[in-house]
Amino acid sequence: MGSKSYSVAIAGATGAVGNVMLQLLEERKFPVRELKLLASSKSKGKTLTFKGENISVEELGPKSFTGVEVALFSAGASRSKEFAKYAVEAGAVVIDNSSAFRMEPDIPLVVPEINPDAIKQYKKTGIIANPNCTTIVTLMGAAPLHKYGKIKRMVATSYQAVSGAGAKAMAELEAQVRAWAKGEPLKVEVFPYQIAFNVLPHIDVFLENGYTKEEMKLINESRKILNDQTIKVSPTTVRVPVFRAHSVAVNIQTEKKITRQKAIELINAFPGVQVEDDPAHKKYPMPLFIAGQDDCFVGRIREDDSVENGLNFWVVGDQLKKGAALNAIQIAEQMIKDKLL
Amino acid sequence: MGSKSYSVAIAGATGAVGNVMLQLLEERKFPVRELKLLASSKSKGKTLTFKGENISVEELGPKSFTGVEVALFSAGASRSKEFAKYAVEAGAVVIDNSSAFRMEPDIPLVVPEINPDAIKQYKKTGIIANPNCTTIVTLMGAAPLHKYGKIKRMVATSYQAVSGAGAKAMAELEAQVRAWAKGEPLKVEVFPYQIAFNVLPHIDVFLENGYTKEEMKLINESRKILNDQTIKVSPTTVRVPVFRAHSVAVNIQTEKKITRQKAIELINAFPGVQVEDDPAHKKYPMPLFIAGQDDCFVGRIREDDSVENGLNFWVVGDQLKKGAALNAIQIAEQMIKDKLL
Repeated sequence: MGSKSYSVAIAGATGAVGNVMLQLLEERKFPVRELKLLASSKSKGKTLTFKGENISVEELGPKSFTGVEVALFSAGASRSKEFAKYAVEAGAVVIDNSSAFRMEPDIPLVVPEINPDAIKQYKKTGIIANPNCTTIVTLMGAAPLHKYGKIKRMVATSYQAVSGAGAKAMAELEAQVRAWAKGEPLKVEVFPYQIAFNVLPHIDVFLENGYTKEEMKLINESRKILNDQTIKVSPTTVRVPVFRAHSVAVNIQTEKKITRQKAIELINAFPGVQVEDDPAHKKYPMPLFIAGQDDCFVGRIREDDSVENGLNFWVVGDQLKKGAALNAIQIAEQMIKDKLL
Repeated sequence: MGSKSYSVAIAGATGAVGNVMLQLLEERKFPVRELKLLASSKSKGKTLTFKGENISVEELGPKSFTGVEVALFSAGASRSKEFAKYAVEAGAVVIDNSSAFRMEPDIPLVVPEINPDAIKQYKKTGIIANPNCTTIVTLMGAAPLHKYGKIKRMVATSYQAVSGAGAKAMAELEAQVRAWAKGEPLKVEVFPYQIAFNVLPHIDVFLENGYTKEEMKLINESRKILNDQTIKVSPTTVRVPVFRAHSVAVNIQTEKKITRQKAIELINAFPGVQVEDDPAHKKYPMPLFIAGQDDCFVGRIREDDSVENGLNFWVVGDQLKKGAALNAIQIAEQMIKDKLL
């Protein structure tokens, strides 16, 4: 990664994703010269640890970014819209984990293993968008197949962990289960309904067409990342009582036939994703065991003879890592590799 | 239902489904003259209550069925294969909840709202098969649409409750969550892996083609019940930490276009299934709230423009009721109505 080091800021450092960003910068030995931890006024003065050093959280504001070279944003779309411009003005590259800029034509939407070449477009605006977590996990399984056989249509049905709704959502599942075990009434605050022992076919807000925003992200972001506006995507996104890894059942139809054996080869040859698929030995990826891992895992690979060139697979990835924090940091690492930083 | 009453036996009376059969016979005022509760030798002498009366459980055996007119079997496929013949020889109609006879060409496979006319074929063998729970729930949403617009292809992705694996599986989820809340180690006995805070893309055993038996049931039983061997089904079946209602995300492609409005009309006009679908007010069916209900519920009805005449919907039904015990008893009720009993 060269010998240069960087002044890095995390906006939203106290959130679930911000926390993992902090961990990963340390674990991956990202060349940090200086680190600013930014959050809302509520978290001001809180202390977080980086490489054994305590760092005080500062309030995110227009003047937070002086001297910052890499600004990692994960503080929600409205804060990104308000504050990213100050980071850009200060000369930083913004890598934004929110949905604020993802569909802006001039802003690249990047999964480094899939479309690293898109990163260089950041020069137009200073901003790179990190995709939606479910889209990243889905595409880590789908992209290796698409690059070989071209996906024409994809039906994606998700089993999303509560971490996707933030640290409070994780605490809510835990609190509901503890209350249930004690025979106490369950509190419902973050999710619209009880999530313990339930599944909610509703993530993000509903749109006019009956799909949720989360579902439309899967359609639109998949097309942008794969740079193919012709791919048809039919999404259903569902919350399940799992803490931090997302699973997606994916049914694809490709232009060129992909056998199970070919799919295994293609996925195993792709960076950041591994095949875990041995039905005879009950090997398939599960979110409980994938939580905390960097790579995404694909199993249940089956040819689907209900349609020409059909294939089913099941992909699981840690929502906080590859679905958010890790992907953002990998974007910065790729920029260093490509001498863009 | 006429004034005749019947000698009824439940084989597997102490299991999760058998228990609900017992409840339903009472609640629905099924004309029971005499009731025999049968189970394995382990449960012999146990006492269950029917209409305020204690009934001792007898050991299921070749001589259990003397005088029995309706034998409800829910004791697993191997017991059905072993003992159903004795019930038939004794002159009973067997309504079997296991997978033992479902695909036998001479044995009808019945959801009374969908294919009541198939029941009369029972005369050939004395046996009527009750379909797989996920297939029933899926078809309660799909059949009203199929009868109008003919389904050509269906991608069905399930979120199955632990009740589908029996009373011990329900106890295992409960015990795992209680142990987790106490910080104690979790025991894994019924499912191959921990089910609490996890999802398992594995139900029933794996077959040579990479699909599970549960998935093949969805393909084969759907075709038999809808009496249409041309329907293409692509299934993925998944266990989720929910107690007793199954949910299925269904994507269909029909010969005739079905709009959202038309789908709502068709489903609401069909017996045994209701539309619960008002995104603006966060109304959609969820397994926690559908548990214990007789009807299945459909929501998230959305036209799918990724394919010609595409439609997505989400259907939820109580696995122990419509997915098993209720459907079996409805078959017997339909026979009374049709003067077959």
